[in-house]
Amino acid sequence: MKKVVVIGGVAAGLKSAAKVRREDPTAQITVLERGSLISYGACGMPYYVGGLIAEVDEFVKTPAGSIRNPGFFKNVKDIDVRTKTLVTEINREAKTVAAKNLETGEEMQLPYDNLVIATGASPVRPPLPGIELKGIHQFWHPDDAVAVRSGIDKGQIKNAVVIGAGLVGMEMAEAFKTRGVNVTVVEMQDQMFPAFLDTEIAASVTKFTTENSINVLLGEKVERFTGDDRVKEVVTDKRVIPADIVILSIGVRPNVELAKAAGLAIGKTGAIAVNEYMQTSDPDIYAGGDCVENTNIISGKKVFAPMGSTANKHGRIIGENIVGKRTEFRGVLNTVVVKVLHLNVGKTGITEREAQVLGLPYVTAMVAGPDKPHYMPGSKPITIKLIVDPESRKLLGAQAFGEGEVAKRIDVLAAALTMGATIDDLFDMDLAYAPPYSSPIDNVAVAANAVMNKLSGKFKGISALSAKEKMEQGQAVFLDVRSPEEYNQIRIADCRGTQNIPLGQLRNRLDEFNKEDEIVAFCKISLRGYEAACILEGAGFKDVKVIEGGIVSWPFACEK
Amino acid sequence: MKKVVVIGGVAAGLKSAAKVRREDPTAQITVLERGSLISYGACGMPYYVGGLIAEVDEFVKTPAGSIRNPGFFKNVKDIDVRTKTLVTEINREAKTVAAKNLETGEEMQLPYDNLVIATGASPVRPPLPGIELKGIHQFWHPDDAVAVRSGIDKGQIKNAVVIGAGLVGMEMAEAFKTRGVNVTVVEMQDQMFPAFLDTEIAASVTKFTTENSINVLLGEKVERFTGDDRVKEVVTDKRVIPADIVILSIGVRPNVELAKAAGLAIGKTGAIAVNEYMQTSDPDIYAGGDCVENTNIISGKKVFAPMGSTANKHGRIIGENIVGKRTEFRGVLNTVVVKVLHLNVGKTGITEREAQVLGLPYVTAMVAGPDKPHYMPGSKPITIKLIVDPESRKLLGAQAFGEGEVAKRIDVLAAALTMGATIDDLFDMDLAYAPPYSSPIDNVAVAANAVMNKLSGKFKGISALSAKEKMEQGQAVFLDVRSPEEYNQIRIADCRGTQNIPLGQLRNRLDEFNKEDEIVAFCKISLRGYEAACILEGAGFKDVKVIEGGIVSWPFACEK
Repeated sequence: MKKVVVIGGVAAGLKSAAKVRREDPTAQITVLERGSLISYGACGMPYYVGGLIAEVDEFVKTPAGSIRNPGFFKNVKDIDVRTKTLVTEINREAKTVAAKNLETGEEMQLPYDNLVIATGASPVRPPLPGIELKGIHQFWHPDDAVAVRSGIDKGQIKNAVVIGAGLVGMEMAEAFKTRGVNVTVVEMQDQMFPAFLDTEIAASVTKFTTENSINVLLGEKVERFTGDDRVKEVVTDKRVIPADIVILSIGVRPNVELAKAAGLAIGKTGAIAVNEYMQTSDPDIYAGGDCVENTNIISGKKVFAPMGSTANKHGRIIGENIVGKRTEFRGVLNTVVVKVLHLNVGKTGITEREAQVLGLPYVTAMVAGPDKPHYMPGSKPITIKLIVDPESRKLLGAQAFGEGEVAKRIDVLAAALTMGATIDDLFDMDLAYAPPYSSPIDNVAVAANAVMNKLSGKFKGISALSAKEKMEQGQAVFLDVRSPEEYNQIRIADCRGTQNIPLGQLRNRLDEFNKEDEIVAFCKISLRGYEAACILEGAGFKDVKVIEGGIVSWPFACEK
Repeated sequence: MKKVVVIGGVAAGLKSAAKVRREDPTAQITVLERGSLISYGACGMPYYVGGLIAEVDEFVKTPAGSIRNPGFFKNVKDIDVRTKTLVTEINREAKTVAAKNLETGEEMQLPYDNLVIATGASPVRPPLPGIELKGIHQFWHPDDAVAVRSGIDKGQIKNAVVIGAGLVGMEMAEAFKTRGVNVTVVEMQDQMFPAFLDTEIAASVTKFTTENSINVLLGEKVERFTGDDRVKEVVTDKRVIPADIVILSIGVRPNVELAKAAGLAIGKTGAIAVNEYMQTSDPDIYAGGDCVENTNIISGKKVFAPMGSTANKHGRIIGENIVGKRTEFRGVLNTVVVKVLHLNVGKTGITEREAQVLGLPYVTAMVAGPDKPHYMPGSKPITIKLIVDPESRKLLGAQAFGEGEVAKRIDVLAAALTMGATIDDLFDMDLAYAPPYSSPIDNVAVAANAVMNKLSGKFKGISALSAKEKMEQGQAVFLDVRSPEEYNQIRIADCRGTQNIPLGQLRNRLDEFNKEDEIVAFCKISLRGYEAACILEGAGFKDVKVIEGGIVSWPFACEK
């Protein structure tokens, strides 16, 4: 009878335990969890604070409504789950684990044939003056969610400050905004979502959040917190911000102390090193979830990328390998999706910045367009940026944002990346078309087509950032080919040297330009901009570019 | 200066013309269209009838609001589009096309270097008595949409009959239902969507539409229409149905007369045969869109599969090849997605029935589950069925239905199929996870996992159809492992020999069964059913099966 001990009772730990049980009815399986809750859905907590979810209990329930507590695991899966039980030592020679019940003080020694380390990660808590004040929360446990929500419910919270414009930070900013709380996000780096978005896309997202009353302060450093017993103000290097509550969301660190003390290898990222079978440097000990490092399958680099989805995959693979299979975990794409109010933002594979850092050759293209036929109600724009290897034409990564259906396109691109797809494959894919869901040529295919046109020299794009520079230097002629009505509604602000010539008139007004002029064409989504460039080039113009993503993706100010 | 003549001014024709223009500014491009409208979005017409779209003009507008008429194509793309112009002959020796203006009677001869045949398809009009009565529409042109909608708007239509339970038929049924018109769908075959759904999934969709007051009559043949000037009744082999309007949607036929008369090869499917470059048997003549046949990339068979999305791809490929590239079209997956009221239904690759006909070895699994975490508002169930090659473990096809997000999963599966993905690839995919969009283990991965468990012998599924048979023969013990509350709310009707034992009690009540019993376990989605099977097998039971897809996918009656 095989003895399996699992340290950690959330995603990877319980999943591996359950998988072992399904494969081996006789194994003796023990899960040791330091906290009082197990198997909770932490990712849903911002939506509880935002009021979408009535009770915090929902996070520990199965879809059928059972509470996932030790009794549930005992009855259903015959797994012995011990909560409030702290593991103090792993003895690899004796193959035992020493643990202590935090309530009763009872100490125990558990022998194992296989051990699973699923100790998770902990939020980084910066050692700033005032960090001990009440009302400063790390958002990592349901207790924090309950405290924050009850403060809002009681009307005690008028001003919230979120530190860190990452996933949890922006989800919490949305939650506060939804509940009518003033919210300011302070981010040390000079862009939002610095871990996974390229500059111009981050800027578009920031423009959206700012327009929707979530104040985002970039390149600003928190120096201290003030208040008596409770926090009252956040002091940054630039200002003082009133705060009834503070959410710290500047990242997490893997919990590796036990593994380290046991002499297991720790990777370069600071997380536990595992092989493709999720084994640590001791083959009898597996590790998974937020405490281990992963391999990015595009860059081949080790990454620390804690995600609930990855943790669950780890759990299954560990379970299979414990019962004697040889199942490999291929790695991750660092795929991310996040909702900020009614904006959807996603990323998979590597960013342009990562391609630069890795020294990879690459080409990018960014296209905007409606997510379904424009005539359907609810059609909304989305913008997709692809990063592609110009030699092999293989996709390296993708980012997308917009009020339309972004997650679907990110998932298609993640599937494509997993399989090593080229832009030609992407264009060919027979995706599901019907007007309630998508256009005949899906946004993904349009993006792939834009890269093809760039590679063949037909499409000369210019990023919004470069266009803005040219604009400021008064270098080029900016040609807005939308209709006068569209131009009067909204246009790029401070755009010196813009001419508005509707696309349909362009062929007859070519004499208004000089063939040697540098011309930067654009429209709402830059499809007409591209048509304009084709007309100009066909007429012998030498230097014509198109602003990628058009006005809907323009990250700078517009005038109305 | 290259001369390009295009026959047909809708999707494939105009797309190929536009692509040629972008690549070759000097080509002389002429598009000849028999009708008065060009480039219209016919797929949106049911939504115009349903009232979602205000004006039928929307179908000929660009997203920016320009009307796509000949003037637009002249000004923007320098393409000469002639409407109401019927092509009467293709002379391949002289490389000319003879055409006639249907209004003025003017005849013309157009020389070509390359010809594109994009003559589309026409709806099948059965030669039934009374077919000439007013109020019987084929739904293929905006004029039909205008006539039907105006009849509804004026209150003249109380009862509608749709003939054919395919895509257009069911979209029109939804439109009538939305507008408060009684609607009956008559389908000759014994299931809905006979072209692309397996029996048990079609039955679930029929159950849904029936519960939502769209009456679907299967295996019923229309014999004639009665009425004086306008249709009044549809007479089938089983009954007489009152009808103020009839929609004929029993399929379409490719328009191949011109191609046939010119001696071009016609394929087995009856559509124009083309090679991978979209060339007909005459290499100077290309053909694309609804008039050509495609290759299904999974079966390798030629198929007639008219789709707006495919037509647009054809257009681009034809345009590229005309300007001298060698771009191949790989083929289609016969991907389909359709909305019927609040139910989403989709399919990609081949069905189980097709796998049988092709004589391919295959295994299937069907799983149900919420499309995002159950605690998120708006979480809805979806059911996915995968068809997989048991040797290579490669995906062959997939079907899905449910009130949740189906189109995203079909697109991921279509991407996977395009790239030859295995179920192991599907499980590994780092899909985008966040609670507003999906669960940590996406439904696609759960489905892949179910197939893996089947192949390894862990999961012994039984289809609803087989379970129903066993039920009627009183063969097996049916074990519903939901809670008593769930059982009281809804349960399988006429289920003899059902025991309701909540999963959490099962381990302690094993003595209520005989180890030699055939036990069929299930729950709402059959996840607990699977847990129950693991418990029973672990305890030595010999013959335990799980109903695939659980009660949410059960296509037969339930009691409340």
